[in-house]
Amino acid sequence: MKIDGKPYRSVWVDREDGWSVRIFDQTKLPWDVEILRLADVAAAGHAIRSMQVRGAPLIGAVAAYGLALALRADASTEAMERDAAMLGATRPTAVNLRWALDRMLTRLRNTPLAERVRTAYAEAALICDEDAAQCEAIGTHGLALIEAAARVKAGERVNVLTHCNAGWLATVDWGTALAPIYKAHDAGIDVHVWVDETRPRNQGAALTAWELGRHGVAHTVIADNAGGHLMQHGEVDLVIVGTDRVTRTGDVANKIGTYLKALAAKDNDVPFWVACPSTTIDWSVADGVADIPIEQRAEAEVAAVTGRTEDGSIATVRVAPLGSPAANPAFDVTPARLVSGLITERGRCAATADGLRTLFPEHA
Amino acid sequence: MKIDGKPYRSVWVDREDGWSVRIFDQTKLPWDVEILRLADVAAAGHAIRSMQVRGAPLIGAVAAYGLALALRADASTEAMERDAAMLGATRPTAVNLRWALDRMLTRLRNTPLAERVRTAYAEAALICDEDAAQCEAIGTHGLALIEAAARVKAGERVNVLTHCNAGWLATVDWGTALAPIYKAHDAGIDVHVWVDETRPRNQGAALTAWELGRHGVAHTVIADNAGGHLMQHGEVDLVIVGTDRVTRTGDVANKIGTYLKALAAKDNDVPFWVACPSTTIDWSVADGVADIPIEQRAEAEVAAVTGRTEDGSIATVRVAPLGSPAANPAFDVTPARLVSGLITERGRCAATADGLRTLFPEHA
Repeated sequence: MKIDGKPYRSVWVDREDGWSVRIFDQTKLPWDVEILRLADVAAAGHAIRSMQVRGAPLIGAVAAYGLALALRADASTEAMERDAAMLGATRPTAVNLRWALDRMLTRLRNTPLAERVRTAYAEAALICDEDAAQCEAIGTHGLALIEAAARVKAGERVNVLTHCNAGWLATVDWGTALAPIYKAHDAGIDVHVWVDETRPRNQGAALTAWELGRHGVAHTVIADNAGGHLMQHGEVDLVIVGTDRVTRTGDVANKIGTYLKALAAKDNDVPFWVACPSTTIDWSVADGVADIPIEQRAEAEVAAVTGRTEDGSIATVRVAPLGSPAANPAFDVTPARLVSGLITERGRCAATADGLRTLFPEHA
Repeated sequence: MKIDGKPYRSVWVDREDGWSVRIFDQTKLPWDVEILRLADVAAAGHAIRSMQVRGAPLIGAVAAYGLALALRADASTEAMERDAAMLGATRPTAVNLRWALDRMLTRLRNTPLAERVRTAYAEAALICDEDAAQCEAIGTHGLALIEAAARVKAGERVNVLTHCNAGWLATVDWGTALAPIYKAHDAGIDVHVWVDETRPRNQGAALTAWELGRHGVAHTVIADNAGGHLMQHGEVDLVIVGTDRVTRTGDVANKIGTYLKALAAKDNDVPFWVACPSTTIDWSVADGVADIPIEQRAEAEVAAVTGRTEDGSIATVRVAPLGSPAANPAFDVTPARLVSGLITERGRCAATADGLRTLFPEHA
């Protein structure tokens, strides 16, 4: 999507050297737009682990390019399997990471050593192009929901609430949850987004508000606590969130706090939709609450907040007393019964095994 | 309650001059324990408005002393009514403010001018003593819930989740939601508190974690987003929150985000109790969502966070991009149907008109 009129993707191969991998350092946003150059697999692993890149689809894409970088150094099968395992262990919850690496390995195991680097770059590029196309398709299928809300409101502004960042920064382009919003905005629909700040890492305030603002979409940042109140008072027409893993039964793992918004949506008859490219579906898991591993992240993310001081410098301030411990589960699981439906690249479906089977019969 | 072994109340008359009013500057906690001296009604009004004191019962107590300070300057009925109106307009949601001022005015209107100052101090002191006694009684009635949970868990740690600060810093002493926890801790029960940080003002991290820690109660700070996940996984035995206003039908206005925790508690069969001194009940209101005014506070509270930097200085950092608007509703209303019950100074009751009438027949 666009930054002040200029189109970008969230990951690309350097146009000059033709092999290094470029990403935005998302830990620096919204204050500094810093483009990093990843020159080896260690840098790619670090980028995922340290959340310079995050968002389930983007993690998969960067891991794929990470494997291509690894093969430039050592194209042997032994090194490839080892480096893929390292990349696969960087984050535990998003399933796209495993999906992208499995796809790369399946393609590369049967490729002669001399061809592996070229093949890996081609496959990673294909993953990126397919992701962008999937997200754009999700945008089109989700646009219909916003158009319907706009019709009901007869031209009044449509208010969509979202949690965390499932925009173009979380994917290769378009985003998942934000793709329908970009489509609606670009189509001239008066759409406004309630942006949950998404503590503890503030991806909503730092990334979603930034990318919506840079593209020109009306939005308002709110504390994560505020969404239920807004829904009670008719200020939310629709919730759209992304996901890190959807079970074959429609349970949705997403950023911590998503479950609370789903409960509030249900309680107030607000539609709650999950934008979900098929790469995010884990066909091997049925019970999300019991069986999706939830990443526990550092206490410091809860105990402290990073932002910009008045003088323009970046500072981290502690908000919890010294000596008070903190806990930091990074994701939660929204049971399928709370989900109005899934928006996939093949269309919308119920968040049920039947709904998913209808769209993806090859997994039935 | 105690700060590192020494007992304190949250408001008191200066022991040396016998008339100025002492409070903790709660905007400085947990980093600086700064005791302020309020010497006139303007300072009392400013303390409430700027949230140097906050918490529904404490606001009422400080307003009562504020009126006493006002009368020292001008004991005329005209000035008294004007100053009471000023104090009453400092915060809109908590009903205790109006209750305390009405009580003071009722007592003072029939008091000769020469007696008013003395009477006002005596009445304010009575309000404080009654509040402390009410809170201690709430502690006793709530302790039974924690004892019951401890019996079920056969000695395993009891985990209580709370939101915002409804501790001794929010009242005159003991607190409302935290009173049962202090009682349990002091009785030797192994109790642990999940402390919602409570964005945007972080009263949980800044005040609740601080007062629990200083008194020696085990606790863990969590992002507001995390409570639902913890409940799904059996990590919460009981929720206890305070309230700023309870309707005669049992609807509960409390800090923004309380409603989301009530929904999660209901969804996971976790008891959700509201600690509610009778001064917080608004017998004139039946429909909380429709009729309790919700304070809208400054955007800057959402867009920025204040805390302590590594070098020990206090800094405010912006977390939302410049140019992104923010909205800041400060309270929400939890419908009575989500509340397991109310803990009042007279005992526990259902969050219903019948339940409240049983305990408070004089309001029937």
